[in-house]
Amino acid sequence: MQTSPLLENLIEALRCLPGVGPKSAQRMAYHLLQRDRSGGMALSRVLTEAMSQIGHCEQCRTFTEEDVCTICCNPRRQNTGLLCVVEMPADIQAIEQTGQFSGRYFVLMGHLSPLDGIGPKEIGLDLLQHRLETESFTEVILATNPTIEGDATANYIAEICLQLGIKVSRIAHGIPVGGELEMVDGTTLTHSFIGRRQIE
Amino acid sequence: MQTSPLLENLIEALRCLPGVGPKSAQRMAYHLLQRDRSGGMALSRVLTEAMSQIGHCEQCRTFTEEDVCTICCNPRRQNTGLLCVVEMPADIQAIEQTGQFSGRYFVLMGHLSPLDGIGPKEIGLDLLQHRLETESFTEVILATNPTIEGDATANYIAEICLQLGIKVSRIAHGIPVGGELEMVDGTTLTHSFIGRRQIE
Ligand SMILES: [Zn+2]
Ligand SMILES: [Zn+2]
Repeated sequence: MQTSPLLENLIEALRCLPGVGPKSAQRMAYHLLQRDRSGGMALSRVLTEAMSQIGHCEQCRTFTEEDVCTICCNPRRQNTGLLCVVEMPADIQAIEQTGQFSGRYFVLMGHLSPLDGIGPKEIGLDLLQHRLETESFTEVILATNPTIEGDATANYIAEICLQLGIKVSRIAHGIPVGGELEMVDGTTLTHSFIGRRQIE
Repeated sequence: MQTSPLLENLIEALRCLPGVGPKSAQRMAYHLLQRDRSGGMALSRVLTEAMSQIGHCEQCRTFTEEDVCTICCNPRRQNTGLLCVVEMPADIQAIEQTGQFSGRYFVLMGHLSPLDGIGPKEIGLDLLQHRLETESFTEVILATNPTIEGDATANYIAEICLQLGIKVSRIAHGIPVGGELEMVDGTTLTHSFIGRRQIE
């Protein structure tokens, strides 16, 4: 038993965080109460702001509290004519850290999964097709995860690109098959960018 | 770079939690945004409440949002006449889980550390002495950590008890020397309670 209902509530609420069990939730609660109440208050404020204000970029679907995210807004990135398609927002961070890519992104927020009712529309492919038709991209780089679903999704998007006559490539070498893009180290990811192959 | 300043703020704010580095803070932020916004909002609310309302129990100094905590208020615990002195609120939880102790606690919120300016007053020994003089305890059990500072603090409190003619004991067997009470398993802690020895 805890010595206070509110402390129990705090420990329970902290468990919404991934990887946080009862023991570490308790440690977190005590840490904040004992040593960092202002940090806890600041976290509370930014949590409310973020949960209520962060939506999806109108152009690339990644997380942003603006209509259009900072990457899509950047003229230098627009000028490259490159569009990299990824599954999740975290993949953008992983690719940004390699410094190998200076174009823009498109975030599927998942992958095709017909059995779960996730079709082309659910991963924003209507928006992607509209952009490919109306903007001028020089190349679409498919950086979905090297899994069965990621590959199938990449193939599906490659077809759209080829029908529109847009050069399309798939990042390839170095990513361990079955792995998650977000977990790959920078060097591996760099190689997979350099070794990308065009889909004809 | 993140795609939004607010997302960056959220990731930074999550790092106030112990054991949370940049990578896991990012994973937590994405998890909340993608899958559990209501959990994030609930966490925000209870964080504000807890950080602003939780203070210390007037009797035992543990964390509570009331004047007196649920353990100190409990008549059955008052009737035992036992008082267990611990360093931190987390130690109460560890002891409660053994089911070996049904008395009340006194939380020092630290231990004597003269070089850091932490003397008897800073760990509430004036309050403890006042309680020992005005209430009738049958035994004081010293459950400070088995470290140099914890032992020195226990010795100091034992002296107070002996001067007041109150039976005083130190939990002993089983706790690895240099270890932290909070980390000890329940069986070890149970043995250390059963094998406690009176200080004469
Ligand atoms: Zn965008
Ligand atoms: Zn209390």
